[in-house]
Amino acid sequence: LAGCGVAGDLGRRLAFLAEADQLKSVYRASTLCDASRHENSAEHSWHLALYALVLAGYAGPGVEIGRVIRMLILHDLVEIDTGDVPIHSANGAAHHGAAQLAAEAAAAARIFGLLPDAQGQAFRALWAEFEENETPDAVFAKSLDRAQPVMQNIAAGGGSWIAYDVTYAQLVERVGSRIERGAPRLWGWLDARAHGFFEKPS
Amino acid sequence: LAGCGVAGDLGRRLAFLAEADQLKSVYRASTLCDASRHENSAEHSWHLALYALVLAGYAGPGVEIGRVIRMLILHDLVEIDTGDVPIHSANGAAHHGAAQLAAEAAAAARIFGLLPDAQGQAFRALWAEFEENETPDAVFAKSLDRAQPVMQNIAAGGGSWIAYDVTYAQLVERVGSRIERGAPRLWGWLDARAHGFFEKPS
Ligand SMILES: [Ca+2]
Repeated sequence: LAGCGVAGDLGRRLAFLAEADQLKSVYRASTLCDASRHENSAEHSWHLALYALVLAGYAGPGVEIGRVIRMLILHDLVEIDTGDVPIHSANGAAHHGAAQLAAEAAAAARIFGLLPDAQGQAFRALWAEFEENETPDAVFAKSLDRAQPVMQNIAAGGGSWIAYDVTYAQLVERVGSRIERGAPRLWGWLDARAHGFFEKPS
Repeated sequence: LAGCGVAGDLGRRLAFLAEADQLKSVYRASTLCDASRHENSAEHSWHLALYALVLAGYAGPGVEIGRVIRMLILHDLVEIDTGDVPIHSANGAAHHGAAQLAAEAAAAARIFGLLPDAQGQAFRALWAEFEENETPDAVFAKSLDRAQPVMQNIAAGGGSWIAYDVTYAQLVERVGSRIERGAPRLWGWLDARAHGFFEKPS
């Protein structure tokens, strides 16, 4: 929006929304269900909001689904600065390294800082709550963020499991445990379908 | 999800979510802000949900922003069957033709019909409310759906206005009037920035 005059309450909000557009150019390890290409973090965020809407009845007690949806709409915006770090990359070690966490915190300060103060602070708090993964809303949101790529991989015939040479034990540890915590029946369903992919012929 | 067993409440919901993935392959007339490619309807839907969250304070009285967000998450799913019909295509005539409306109604019946009955009916009603554009929530949601491509075109230096040879009068009639109805201050801001694009040197 160069030269458009982005001062004032509305100007700052629209500048943020134009900045957010860049999330459509951040590509993830997972593919579309038809395996035709990798998915980007903007369409992934839409898909997760739809997951929350459709699977609300599978959330634990005390979950407010409207907050979960807002959290999921915002949760990946930091990737505009940091990129997506695939959960299975660097043998599972890169995803929550200290350098990565510091880069994401700086990205949150910059990107949410484009907004008028009150809303910027509220969004940053909601993003931090998601990352900390402790409140019922965050735990459910995180379980959906882990479940959706499993669905993509089942549909695509392997997807990022093949690309990163993932074992069933790694899937259970890095992904299944998180899904089970927030949505146990969902992990039960996915586990039954994912398990067969990892069975080697004896 | 062929062969995955998609009966039962959870199976039907997950089959719907896998079907919804196809919205990521429906491309629109508008481009990304950097003009690098056309945007798809899934990432556009995410962007609109973010617009609603960020611009809630610019909505008219009686608007419930959580409902607007749900409406926007769902509003383009019919395009999996029908494709996106650009508002400026066929000189503005194709977008709300009778054949197009009938195709969209059939798509809504098929796609939302994948879900368990109660949720499928609720989603279909929310989609129909958006299309009818009469309730305060729908009018605000529609104004955002019209405003976001204007933002994309301003940022991209013309975008779909160039591709469809749009005049300023057509923009006001097809787009501006809708934005003004739901979010008058938003149209004021966009109009001031869009107008210059259409001014021919004399
Ligand atoms: Ca991510």
